[in-house]
Amino acid sequence: MEKLKKYVSVKDEDHFYHQGAVELLIFNFLLILTILTIWLFKNHRFRFLHETGGAMLYGLVMGLIIRYVTKSPDVESGTVYECEKLKSGPSTLLINITNQVYEYQYKREISHHNVNGHQGNAMLQKMTFDPSIFFNILLPPIIFHAGYSLKKRHFFRNLGSILTYAFLGTAISCIVIGLIMYGFVKAMVHMGQLKQGEFHFTDCLYFGSLMSATDPVTVLAIFHELNVDTDLYTLLFGESVLNDAVAIVLTHSISIYSPKENPNAFDAAAFFQSVGNFLGIFAGSFAMGSSYAVVTALISFMHLTKFTKLCEFPMLETGLFFLLSWSAFLSAEAAGLTGIVAVLFCGVTQAHYTYNNLSPDSKMRTKQLFEFMNFLAENVIFCYMGLALFTFQNHIFNPLFIFGALVAVFVARASNIYPLSFLLNLGRKQKIPGNFQHMMMFSG
Amino acid sequence: MEKLKKYVSVKDEDHFYHQGAVELLIFNFLLILTILTIWLFKNHRFRFLHETGGAMLYGLVMGLIIRYVTKSPDVESGTVYECEKLKSGPSTLLINITNQVYEYQYKREISHHNVNGHQGNAMLQKMTFDPSIFFNILLPPIIFHAGYSLKKRHFFRNLGSILTYAFLGTAISCIVIGLIMYGFVKAMVHMGQLKQGEFHFTDCLYFGSLMSATDPVTVLAIFHELNVDTDLYTLLFGESVLNDAVAIVLTHSISIYSPKENPNAFDAAAFFQSVGNFLGIFAGSFAMGSSYAVVTALISFMHLTKFTKLCEFPMLETGLFFLLSWSAFLSAEAAGLTGIVAVLFCGVTQAHYTYNNLSPDSKMRTKQLFEFMNFLAENVIFCYMGLALFTFQNHIFNPLFIFGALVAVFVARASNIYPLSFLLNLGRKQKIPGNFQHMMMFSG
Repeated sequence: MEKLKKYVSVKDEDHFYHQGAVELLIFNFLLILTILTIWLFKNHRFRFLHETGGAMLYGLVMGLIIRYVTKSPDVESGTVYECEKLKSGPSTLLINITNQVYEYQYKREISHHNVNGHQGNAMLQKMTFDPSIFFNILLPPIIFHAGYSLKKRHFFRNLGSILTYAFLGTAISCIVIGLIMYGFVKAMVHMGQLKQGEFHFTDCLYFGSLMSATDPVTVLAIFHELNVDTDLYTLLFGESVLNDAVAIVLTHSISIYSPKENPNAFDAAAFFQSVGNFLGIFAGSFAMGSSYAVVTALISFMHLTKFTKLCEFPMLETGLFFLLSWSAFLSAEAAGLTGIVAVLFCGVTQAHYTYNNLSPDSKMRTKQLFEFMNFLAENVIFCYMGLALFTFQNHIFNPLFIFGALVAVFVARASNIYPLSFLLNLGRKQKIPGNFQHMMMFSG
Repeated sequence: MEKLKKYVSVKDEDHFYHQGAVELLIFNFLLILTILTIWLFKNHRFRFLHETGGAMLYGLVMGLIIRYVTKSPDVESGTVYECEKLKSGPSTLLINITNQVYEYQYKREISHHNVNGHQGNAMLQKMTFDPSIFFNILLPPIIFHAGYSLKKRHFFRNLGSILTYAFLGTAISCIVIGLIMYGFVKAMVHMGQLKQGEFHFTDCLYFGSLMSATDPVTVLAIFHELNVDTDLYTLLFGESVLNDAVAIVLTHSISIYSPKENPNAFDAAAFFQSVGNFLGIFAGSFAMGSSYAVVTALISFMHLTKFTKLCEFPMLETGLFFLLSWSAFLSAEAAGLTGIVAVLFCGVTQAHYTYNNLSPDSKMRTKQLFEFMNFLAENVIFCYMGLALFTFQNHIFNPLFIFGALVAVFVARASNIYPLSFLLNLGRKQKIPGNFQHMMMFSG
């Protein structure tokens, strides 16, 4: 029996190396369930629930199960230790515990609210995965696929409207949400739910800019399924992709305005600086994405000429295509630009130039590969969104704030879409606005 | 200027979310270089360097560059802190630093040798990636693809020889390496390079069992390229895949024998227990892998019958196939079995049953997908092996020990292959041994 115990402890040690297997298995399980559900839905032509909703629902249920069933409290993780010598939180902490040095890696700041109610559930902590995985691995294939399968004609025909929505619309949305939330925050202070000076106007604007970034993933998934009018699809998709860039820069510029000393000041220089900065980031990302695509196109063009034979090795061609397109995203991120814009324009350019240079075998391979990665990434994201509701531990729920946010976002959408559609219609005289009811429904 | 500084610091904060972009970009860059090199080699029919060697070489150069060019010393990471209250290293450490609680995650133990010479290069630390990524994400596609494209007839015809090599051969190799290393360790103690009692005989055996796990990845990559005799390929591949399982259990059982109190004792009960345990793990992994494959086969068979139509959605079919096969590996790991064995037999069974049930479109999609993933994973691993030589920070280089290890492994291979091949030949009377010169060359 003693021997067996030792063996088990050795095995546990070994399991340290295979950590992550259980978490990946849970995601796999959710995805398998989702695929089977999609299949069932498609077979029986169910319409009352979209597949993405199914994925989210499964994630939600799994999150509930993990939260309330797997109670594996890590005894020590609930207690907070103190080190007198430490002045700030280093990214890597070396700590001496009973003559053995251990390395710890920085994970996050914890609010005091959270320390007291710290659950210490190891499983929960593992399931709340890195934002860096989402950004660097799951997002690029979705946006790239969108760009790659984009109807270019429609996109460029509607470029004016798309840019108006993306630039002007996001700014309006941000300001409207900020103003309404400021009203609600004032009310909360009045009701004693919040201390005076805890939430400034700039914080409300910050929230507004965060909320103004509409999600291209859901829009793409649902619109693609519904086979909506191509102009409407392009308009909404173009806006939702580009306004991420706008929202990011807005968030930056607002966070400049909010030093603790003078939170309500307005600084014209900083304002124009961030406008210039935005244009720089946008142009840089565009250039980065397009140039990667042009390089890929040149390489694939070279193989068409006599002195190289990449077409004989479709896997190498596919691999190169895949890696260069992904690099467009990563390079943009590494250079401080927005990867989303880079990979979107990379996809558009790849579809325009590289695709026609590929061998027939590679054409099909790349198309199927990107389709498959898009499918997987999309479903992982929806499952995760469901999971996160119960597994993410930093939530503070305030009913009034949530209600305020819902009202603000709804009003902002309306104040954004109606005037702009009116404005654009005067200029273009086309019959799109009949669909704006739809648009509001989905983007809200 | 002050404003600009603030802006930069805000941007840096944002970059915290996109960490990993630079590291992924470096890998992408290495892979792109490797693909271009492979293409060049294939075009000019170069034979003097295999592509995998190229990938490793690029990784090596990149490791050197990262090590000696990017000096970004993290000032605080070199100092070791003490916490009196801490008795052992928890997996999650909450620490209070100037009234703000930070969460740190356990990363590894650090030897005292290493603390003093701790480089504190943040880039290096990031590039030494998790073993869990290697195990859970990079390894399964390679082994699965090997099983999926295995010539079953040859595998089962040579099953006896494969099992003899895997079981008996690995045990012999472990013991021979252990004995030789013990001799070298004695010599090192004699020369004063090592203290008496720092390295026991069981530690030498432990080293022997680690060294006895031959690498299936290299063998597959090189043999596939050289188009060697199928029987030889199957024999060596089968042995190198199965002996991982043997080596893992050997390592376990040896670590049972080495409690500090009585390091040289032999315990028959523990010995037979680990033999039984090995058989259990092996049978369990086999059952796990095969049952996942059977489930996939049943689902894909169902769609052939009239009441389901999965074949109309080849992407769903491909997705399900991919996820279920990966789950075979993850389930085995999560259950404490060996995922390699599970995913190998999953691949073999999938090729036998599921493949024939797939729609023609899915047949091609899955084949190309697994081929592509195998190709990428293989090249990432070789690049990483090159990188790791300079970026992994726990190496202690001792020339005599390295020389001893080389001699021991060489002798063990010889003592393993010649007697066994002689033994097997008596039983089977076939003309394989002419190739054993080859075999030694590659597996050594």
